[in-house]
Amino acid sequence: MTTLISGGEVVSPQGVTPADVLVDGETITAVLAPGTAQTLGLVPDKTIDATGKYVLPGGIDVHTHLDMPFGGTFSVDDFETGTRAAAWGGTTTIIDFPVQKKGGSLQEAVDTWHAKADGKACIDYGFHAILADVNESSLKEMDVLVDQGVTSFKLFMAYPGVFLSTDDQIMQAMYRAADNGATIMMHAENGAAIDQIVTRAIAAGHTEPKYHGLTRPIALEAEAVGRATRMAEVTGAPLYFVHLSSGEAVDVVAQARDAGRNVFGETCPQYLFLDESDLARPDFEGAKYVCTPALRPQEEQAKLWRGLRTNDLSVVATDHCPFCFVPDKQLGRDDFRAIPNGLPGVEHRMDLLHMGVTKGEIGLARWVEIAAATPARMFGLYPRKGTISPGADADIVIYDPQATQTVSAQTHHMNVDYSVYEGWEFTGRVETVLSRGEVILADGEFSGSPGRGHFQQRSLSQYLV
Amino acid sequence: MTTLISGGEVVSPQGVTPADVLVDGETITAVLAPGTAQTLGLVPDKTIDATGKYVLPGGIDVHTHLDMPFGGTFSVDDFETGTRAAAWGGTTTIIDFPVQKKGGSLQEAVDTWHAKADGKACIDYGFHAILADVNESSLKEMDVLVDQGVTSFKLFMAYPGVFLSTDDQIMQAMYRAADNGATIMMHAENGAAIDQIVTRAIAAGHTEPKYHGLTRPIALEAEAVGRATRMAEVTGAPLYFVHLSSGEAVDVVAQARDAGRNVFGETCPQYLFLDESDLARPDFEGAKYVCTPALRPQEEQAKLWRGLRTNDLSVVATDHCPFCFVPDKQLGRDDFRAIPNGLPGVEHRMDLLHMGVTKGEIGLARWVEIAAATPARMFGLYPRKGTISPGADADIVIYDPQATQTVSAQTHHMNVDYSVYEGWEFTGRVETVLSRGEVILADGEFSGSPGRGHFQQRSLSQYLV
Amino acid sequence: MTTLISGGEVVSPQGVTPADVLVDGETITAVLAPGTAQTLGLVPDKTIDATGKYVLPGGIDVHTHLDMPFGGTFSVDDFETGTRAAAWGGTTTIIDFPVQKKGGSLQEAVDTWHAKADGKACIDYGFHAILADVNESSLKEMDVLVDQGVTSFKLFMAYPGVFLSTDDQIMQAMYRAADNGATIMMHAENGAAIDQIVTRAIAAGHTEPKYHGLTRPIALEAEAVGRATRMAEVTGAPLYFVHLSSGEAVDVVAQARDAGRNVFGETCPQYLFLDESDLARPDFEGAKYVCTPALRPQEEQAKLWRGLRTNDLSVVATDHCPFCFVPDKQLGRDDFRAIPNGLPGVEHRMDLLHMGVTKGEIGLARWVEIAAATPARMFGLYPRKGTISPGADADIVIYDPQATQTVSAQTHHMNVDYSVYEGWEFTGRVETVLSRGEVILADGEFSGSPGRGHFQQRSLSQYLV
Amino acid sequence: MTTLISGGEVVSPQGVTPADVLVDGETITAVLAPGTAQTLGLVPDKTIDATGKYVLPGGIDVHTHLDMPFGGTFSVDDFETGTRAAAWGGTTTIIDFPVQKKGGSLQEAVDTWHAKADGKACIDYGFHAILADVNESSLKEMDVLVDQGVTSFKLFMAYPGVFLSTDDQIMQAMYRAADNGATIMMHAENGAAIDQIVTRAIAAGHTEPKYHGLTRPIALEAEAVGRATRMAEVTGAPLYFVHLSSGEAVDVVAQARDAGRNVFGETCPQYLFLDESDLARPDFEGAKYVCTPALRPQEEQAKLWRGLRTNDLSVVATDHCPFCFVPDKQLGRDDFRAIPNGLPGVEHRMDLLHMGVTKGEIGLARWVEIAAATPARMFGLYPRKGTISPGADADIVIYDPQATQTVSAQTHHMNVDYSVYEGWEFTGRVETVLSRGEVILADGEFSGSPGRGHFQQRSLSQYLV
Repeated sequence: MTTLISGGEVVSPQGVTPADVLVDGETITAVLAPGTAQTLGLVPDKTIDATGKYVLPGGIDVHTHLDMPFGGTFSVDDFETGTRAAAWGGTTTIIDFPVQKKGGSLQEAVDTWHAKADGKACIDYGFHAILADVNESSLKEMDVLVDQGVTSFKLFMAYPGVFLSTDDQIMQAMYRAADNGATIMMHAENGAAIDQIVTRAIAAGHTEPKYHGLTRPIALEAEAVGRATRMAEVTGAPLYFVHLSSGEAVDVVAQARDAGRNVFGETCPQYLFLDESDLARPDFEGAKYVCTPALRPQEEQAKLWRGLRTNDLSVVATDHCPFCFVPDKQLGRDDFRAIPNGLPGVEHRMDLLHMGVTKGEIGLARWVEIAAATPARMFGLYPRKGTISPGADADIVIYDPQATQTVSAQTHHMNVDYSVYEGWEFTGRVETVLSRGEVILADGEFSGSPGRGHFQQRSLSQYLV
Repeated sequence: MTTLISGGEVVSPQGVTPADVLVDGETITAVLAPGTAQTLGLVPDKTIDATGKYVLPGGIDVHTHLDMPFGGTFSVDDFETGTRAAAWGGTTTIIDFPVQKKGGSLQEAVDTWHAKADGKACIDYGFHAILADVNESSLKEMDVLVDQGVTSFKLFMAYPGVFLSTDDQIMQAMYRAADNGATIMMHAENGAAIDQIVTRAIAAGHTEPKYHGLTRPIALEAEAVGRATRMAEVTGAPLYFVHLSSGEAVDVVAQARDAGRNVFGETCPQYLFLDESDLARPDFEGAKYVCTPALRPQEEQAKLWRGLRTNDLSVVATDHCPFCFVPDKQLGRDDFRAIPNGLPGVEHRMDLLHMGVTKGEIGLARWVEIAAATPARMFGLYPRKGTISPGADADIVIYDPQATQTVSAQTHHMNVDYSVYEGWEFTGRVETVLSRGEVILADGEFSGSPGRGHFQQRSLSQYLV
Repeated sequence: MTTLISGGEVVSPQGVTPADVLVDGETITAVLAPGTAQTLGLVPDKTIDATGKYVLPGGIDVHTHLDMPFGGTFSVDDFETGTRAAAWGGTTTIIDFPVQKKGGSLQEAVDTWHAKADGKACIDYGFHAILADVNESSLKEMDVLVDQGVTSFKLFMAYPGVFLSTDDQIMQAMYRAADNGATIMMHAENGAAIDQIVTRAIAAGHTEPKYHGLTRPIALEAEAVGRATRMAEVTGAPLYFVHLSSGEAVDVVAQARDAGRNVFGETCPQYLFLDESDLARPDFEGAKYVCTPALRPQEEQAKLWRGLRTNDLSVVATDHCPFCFVPDKQLGRDDFRAIPNGLPGVEHRMDLLHMGVTKGEIGLARWVEIAAATPARMFGLYPRKGTISPGADADIVIYDPQATQTVSAQTHHMNVDYSVYEGWEFTGRVETVLSRGEVILADGEFSGSPGRGHFQQRSLSQYLV
Repeated sequence: MTTLISGGEVVSPQGVTPADVLVDGETITAVLAPGTAQTLGLVPDKTIDATGKYVLPGGIDVHTHLDMPFGGTFSVDDFETGTRAAAWGGTTTIIDFPVQKKGGSLQEAVDTWHAKADGKACIDYGFHAILADVNESSLKEMDVLVDQGVTSFKLFMAYPGVFLSTDDQIMQAMYRAADNGATIMMHAENGAAIDQIVTRAIAAGHTEPKYHGLTRPIALEAEAVGRATRMAEVTGAPLYFVHLSSGEAVDVVAQARDAGRNVFGETCPQYLFLDESDLARPDFEGAKYVCTPALRPQEEQAKLWRGLRTNDLSVVATDHCPFCFVPDKQLGRDDFRAIPNGLPGVEHRMDLLHMGVTKGEIGLARWVEIAAATPARMFGLYPRKGTISPGADADIVIYDPQATQTVSAQTHHMNVDYSVYEGWEFTGRVETVLSRGEVILADGEFSGSPGRGHFQQRSLSQYLV
């Protein structure tokens, strides 16, 4: 079956051009100048009129935590609700994080995640593996997973006793990555140092949500970024920082990048649009905004936008990790340390970044670059994903830049009882979504079935020199 | 008439994908996945088999000086020989520099250059205007030229008494550019300071070609880059540095770019491949290598390649400005100051950069980016030029990455009696060149006729936020 | 005649220690531990009790403009009133600036200044020469003046058409200084660029005093600092920046100093204590605060204090250049460009810096270092001046850290009709001043006679490696 | 008893001046201009003629390891031989490092060290405490030790499992120091990361001494410096880096210092004069040069000298930690990890730095500053030590800048069987040493008795703002 998306403006990292897109089955088979379809006498099985709309490669959210175990419970979106919400927001691929257990194997983690996703995912998905226990055995497994298309491994410099890898562990994983070509993803905060600040805060009776932010200073994010960068310099591992939240952290990345190193930065919409004052909201509302790194002073937002323009930040992902305000977040009523860390966000990334366009922070080409094209190249999905090009999967979003919408937990599609953007007005809206050629969202209805999403074997990062 | 270029690997700044390219008349009308042409029953008038070859957007050389008056003579390539040589090297668009005379108008300069190009150019071309006399009148003309598609203006911080604009003149031109959106191009060397060093060298009897290099220190290039950057910061003008030659200069650009400014850098093949030892060649051979800025110590080359990888350098252009060794360069036998400044180079840019690919300095995608895609966006030619996309001009190069060639003045196509790459072996060679759909080079024969090239009205830079 | 200053706390750049100081004639002949005088049976002709007071080397103000011609009039303090006011404020040596006339000689300028000072100066003084006309002849005179003990030469990158030296002139002067060891002092602002901003402001009808500040951006101070630093790097000349006013300028100096260059920075009390809001005072009061560089946003003050602590700023001098509010400053009622540039300040430097001590910005040792010790070493007066050491001139200040005073034009000793610190309360006050062994201020009375001050031949800077 | 040191040139951080120094008992009681003693009719009990010599404050070596337990043995100089050798080299005060045992107390360590020093030390001495076990109890002891005049605490980021403190421990110690004003001294190398490199080297069969250097990259020194600096920023603790060895480490310190932080750097003569090629000497001779951080490439030396000139390095100390080549160093014949870490050096510091003067790296004033004056102020010994001033202890060195000497293990006074400077010719030699007024070295004979040295209670650092 063939579908012609005609009349739209195709947006790529290079710019915006009027073009028609021909889809045959699951694949884009041609991109055509306006009128060429007629000249060629092309008669598609179906035509979608995209006049006045943008035609984008489907968004790729490389940082989600679906169905993630957390202290007896789980993050509240599973692969069905999470991927459906993603699709509503114009995201057609996610990469989620299987979590190695202490004493457990990486393979076990990946297998568990396959089980979570199989039969549920509405869009395509890949996996990064969280290395929570770096040891001889798990180091060897890294090579095995790379062969399975899990080509990136996340380490934590935060969360001592839980996820934190010590520097000798990080070095070992980096050496392995330098050998097998995988990318090391890093949560860069000095957790050991932060814990001391937290201890002092608690001792001083500071238990409200805002102290979650006040105990995690920017200096200790920048420190960890610097430290990881040095270890990557020594070992030769490609290094990707997840969820950078501050200008100082970006500055350290910028220095490494200016020096020509394979170092990359990601930020998240919450750091671009929310700030530490949200953490101080009364009536424990601040708990809704507890994520890690913490929301920062408002002045950091401009520095992050600048980092996105200068490419010192290369990717925007969501770190989607939803917990309900009731009951989940209530766990920390008396002690901010007990508040589950994480925000819902997978549904709004494309729209929020489009607001960056309307506000003049970034251009249209950069929007598509940081939301789809670079994520694809960064994590070995290109040219299958992230581009409107012949041969690519027909993951396509038709986006109406004029439409407006109001965000609310009442109407959003994530399985969570609040929204950090409650009541916000967006300009721009996803109109139609194709996933591997199938229209899964159109006319305000979602038609994708759970289980239709496929696991994506990924190659190595395509940004390394 | 339709042509199908089939079986090749299309290289774009995003990567490399197998695709067929359909050309109809002067325009690319479709890019198709392999096999799609057959599926669609497409029967082109002509098919070019590109199997095993790269299919590239034609190169864009944004820095040439053809038929340029110099002390009673002219640079030795005119628009016919120069654009033909460019085409041989896979370049399908150049941007040349009309030179305002002291006391003369910009329009006059542009008109003169139209006359030089009309009826001669074998490929398309645009103009930047050299502002040699910033005054009330020429400032007003800037707006007029922008309307004519001459959207960039070059100023000199070097050459006192000839081209040098003083800082107050630079400020005025920058304010104008900030208003009309044009890009200020800058030759950044502190010419006033350099002249003092030169004076001392001559007084000390140092007249050989190598003193051309020894009297133009890197510090005074970096200084000028810093100064211009500050003035751009104050005025808001977009700023593009031509022919950067040193790591320190790149560092200053990097700082400005990290700060989010509209500051861009160009380098040239001679700074990537040649060095100051060439200037010291015996028997006055060094004179062949006299260009400005001067060739640098070899260690600078790695810094420039790094700058190309980090995008602190965005463009590679040639500064093609050929003079014959006999008689032109002989003028400076007794005094390096009298040696005409400039090197031939327009023919070898694509090949030399491909050598950067084979040596691992850059990837294929970056090759096309710095040689075609970014030049197009930087100078307002995109999406007409610089991309293999439907709707774009069919300026296409079919490049054989396996072929080899040996460079020699005996066989090159530039109208000059020597080559700075004499005897070098290149891996890779331009096989076929289409310019606006017409095959102008194939099977080792050039078939483009003088005058077929069109003047390109350019829009403003497409890199500004 | 011998004098023993006993019981005080001697402050040096190394710290504070209780010690007695023995003066014999014009010279300090011994520094003694408390009680040692008695042990030695020393019977001085006179004893000054300094119990509870600081004993400091007399302040050295290396930047004054006394009796300076300005558009038909003169700065309103001559060598008598100016040096007397200096002494009231604890300064026992000044270095003033003979001004070369365009077309005139340096020697002529120095001779004129000798005539201004002879018979008038109440304290010792030296000269820096202002190079307003760099040419063959004045370059040669630099060597002659060095032999006369005028070992520093001031150049201007500001004031086109008046004092500005072009970069080629600066290079020539720097080469000369590199040869003869003199220090180049630089007024670092890009005057040519600033003039364009001023022209636009005037064209827009912006004529009030505050536009003096708004038309001289920090970026163009930092630019000039960077440019001069580069030229010093090329030529090898020692370089001292007068009156730095902004954090960005200090940052550039810091980089050069970190790189080990002979680059030094001075700031002035007005930049540490006043800000651009003063320039915006109503009723033309802003004119009182017009000096160049202009007063900056208040946030710059902390950066300058930091620079003083880190030694990126090494000296505090006043740039004392007083003009009366009526009639002098009135010249610019309708056009800020006509307001005479300059503030009165020579009397308050030591007190204002002591306020820096009481506010915790600097320590006592640093106070003496930036106000006396470093100025002496920087400009070749050490060990004769700037230190309480045996063999040094007995230029000594006894300072009461507990006393308070209120500043007012009614009571100050400068010959000017206003004070920029009108009504400020200071903690700390000069109690007694000795100049070459003579008590010239004590018990609230000045007893120094005009003409008692001697010209000081200076050696080269003692900070160069 | 009074002694007059007459005719010499007193060297201070401010410069060099001819002056006589009067000593009464243990104290300097007066510093006199030449001739003043006669004028005052002063008749000292003894006169030392210092004509043609420098008169210096006795050197202060703030980094020694005497009688230090190491794997069943001890560093081979005890407080008698070590302090005697120090005195031979013009050092009159040392600060040694009591070592807390794991599970032991700080007080116990200090008491043990008192026992080592009592009755043995020939010169004065103080203690820093090594925090090898940061816990509730030892944190509390920090306050107690500060009251005992042990005001600085050393932590290690190197040596996992032995001395390494984790970041949470470092934070705790820093918070305590921020409260009580003590200085945190840091061995800055990322030991955890280094261990991984070492493991790989050993696995590859690389066991020779040179691999001690090749496994400790500069990047991991710079990393640790950066990390500690960030933690000091968060906690507010004063921070002093011991034995910095590389330009990158100095650069990080420079940034922190430019930002106005209380961060200081020390280097050692071995990093200024020796290099990694020494580690590669044949016949296991390289083992003599094994110290930590390891000797670096020769190019680092110039960067360290520059750091000393710019004051980014403030102190030179020896890290004197001698082990005999036979038998001690032989332990590592088959595995560089078993070579005792440390070099002998306490005897040669002043002479080696004087060689820096004769080679033009530093001036005389800076020599005294980095070797005596700054160490005194940095560690709370000023004004008792580190200065030729009335009231100070009469710790005085008379130094003959013309004398020459040849270094050899045959003739040096350290209790170790080799010298890393064997056969070097020095220009300059200590002639006479007074310690608290007593001549302990003169005419080539040492006359100081063991046990005459006193423990010095130290105040807090005097460099903090």
